[in-house]
Amino acid sequence: MDLETIRKFTFQRILSEDPKNKFLAILGEIQDQPAVIIAEKTAFDNPTVSELFQPNLTPDVTLTERNDVYHSYTATIAQDIAKPGIKATLIWPATQTHIRKYSKQARRMIRETPELYQQITLPYITSQLGPRIQWVYNILNHTAETDRIVYEDTDPNTGFILLPDLKWDRVTLSSFYLMALVNRRDLHSLHDLNTTHLPLLKNIRSSALREIPLQWPTVSPDQLRLYIHYQPSYYHFHVHVTHLEYEGGDGMAVGRAWLLDDVIAQLEEMAEGRGFEGRTITYVLGEESGLWKEGFSNVKG
Amino acid sequence: MDLETIRKFTFQRILSEDPKNKFLAILGEIQDQPAVIIAEKTAFDNPTVSELFQPNLTPDVTLTERNDVYHSYTATIAQDIAKPGIKATLIWPATQTHIRKYSKQARRMIRETPELYQQITLPYITSQLGPRIQWVYNILNHTAETDRIVYEDTDPNTGFILLPDLKWDRVTLSSFYLMALVNRRDLHSLHDLNTTHLPLLKNIRSSALREIPLQWPTVSPDQLRLYIHYQPSYYHFHVHVTHLEYEGGDGMAVGRAWLLDDVIAQLEEMAEGRGFEGRTITYVLGEESGLWKEGFSNVKG
Repeated sequence: MDLETIRKFTFQRILSEDPKNKFLAILGEIQDQPAVIIAEKTAFDNPTVSELFQPNLTPDVTLTERNDVYHSYTATIAQDIAKPGIKATLIWPATQTHIRKYSKQARRMIRETPELYQQITLPYITSQLGPRIQWVYNILNHTAETDRIVYEDTDPNTGFILLPDLKWDRVTLSSFYLMALVNRRDLHSLHDLNTTHLPLLKNIRSSALREIPLQWPTVSPDQLRLYIHYQPSYYHFHVHVTHLEYEGGDGMAVGRAWLLDDVIAQLEEMAEGRGFEGRTITYVLGEESGLWKEGFSNVKG
Repeated sequence: MDLETIRKFTFQRILSEDPKNKFLAILGEIQDQPAVIIAEKTAFDNPTVSELFQPNLTPDVTLTERNDVYHSYTATIAQDIAKPGIKATLIWPATQTHIRKYSKQARRMIRETPELYQQITLPYITSQLGPRIQWVYNILNHTAETDRIVYEDTDPNTGFILLPDLKWDRVTLSSFYLMALVNRRDLHSLHDLNTTHLPLLKNIRSSALREIPLQWPTVSPDQLRLYIHYQPSYYHFHVHVTHLEYEGGDGMAVGRAWLLDDVIAQLEEMAEGRGFEGRTITYVLGEESGLWKEGFSNVKG
């Protein structure tokens, strides 16, 4: 495909945009086939920022407002193809799945009572087991990603495998991201946790806080955030382990993320054998998710 | 001050940067006085995005990678002073407080036991009462911001005042942000909550979910996120109410934010009269905060 192809993109509509991240996803067509362009502005180029507001880096400058010591400006910033202003991905031909993935998704707050869990969530979770989490079993069986294992505790009840999340490059601390996958296969999510699982949860906490600083000596235990998602994106119980520098956005927000320490503290308050099964759990759900479309969207509010 | 002043800025060091938001804060000097520049790239300009990758908007384009339907590009994007590439604020002369405010702050995970609360947190909270929260009492007394009140329940035990947070422009739904300030003055934070406060917490929840859609008919109850900060930024008990579209970043992350629904659910599990006082509470603390500097930094880990 030559460079001229992207010039043939004809615009149809904005799928989503994020002014804070300077992000944009647009839908259009190239040669009668759907095309999605995902674009974002580039970050400031570290070696040149020392010249910010020097004429060669910032040729035009305007003072737009002044109040006391605060002066606001707008300016143009030098760019060329080696120091570009934007980076973009073209998906072409794009499928409906691509288009949905980059479409702005409205969200809803769900108050999932134990009854709604049985009626709606459990059948959905059941549909997500089997082949969809085979990749987890491949890791636990040592048939895939064996060389990526950071730590393994083989105890069938309290053991787990700790390995880097695919989102992490294994170098940059500000995006430090590991995942603890439990050995046992009977726990699908937060909802299944009760006081009998305290030894498992405490083992994950203490082992991760001990092992990670051994392997990454610049990381101290009080720089790690351990949390659980509900709903998770796959239904084999796992714990996220990130550096406090990591900005997780929605994945770290209340209404999706539960601090492991707080889950442990809550279970410790409960009577023997009790757990989250009996609780109403409140969380945010995207309207594009299967659980919303096939489940909660049909519930009368 | 003429435009030439900012050209005299001499660079010293980067205070902080955020590649995701394309944000940068740098320290330097102008005429021997400290100066801080806060710069960010501009968002995509909505009316012109339909021309993205047309030669007039994107003069130079390079294909950097291709894998199946995914094509990666970099490009330059047209700008002039009316459609600038960056916006910036200069603070000059800048004080140490300005410099600290924009400096990258390391963070620590605190496991605050009931004993550490008594020893360290409580004396700190006590130092933050009185004149520092007079502004809250001015609202509760109707001596300030009276015209901004969205809803008021005058009950001395379960009542509260709901009003827009100063961060919100009162128009844009994606930054919808209200605050519920309780009438009673004996509750400083999450730590003080116990089962006797359930009527107060439930009243805030049900009243906010009822009143907000009455005043903003495009907002439905299942689009609102109600949460509490621990540690809060001021020690008069209050609840944050935001739209699910609002991206709160750190202020919404586990380790800082507690979903009101989950706090209620936890208290409902507890025996009569029990509460968070007896619990270890885990949270993230910035190393520039008073509670870290004057308190937890002195604790042996």
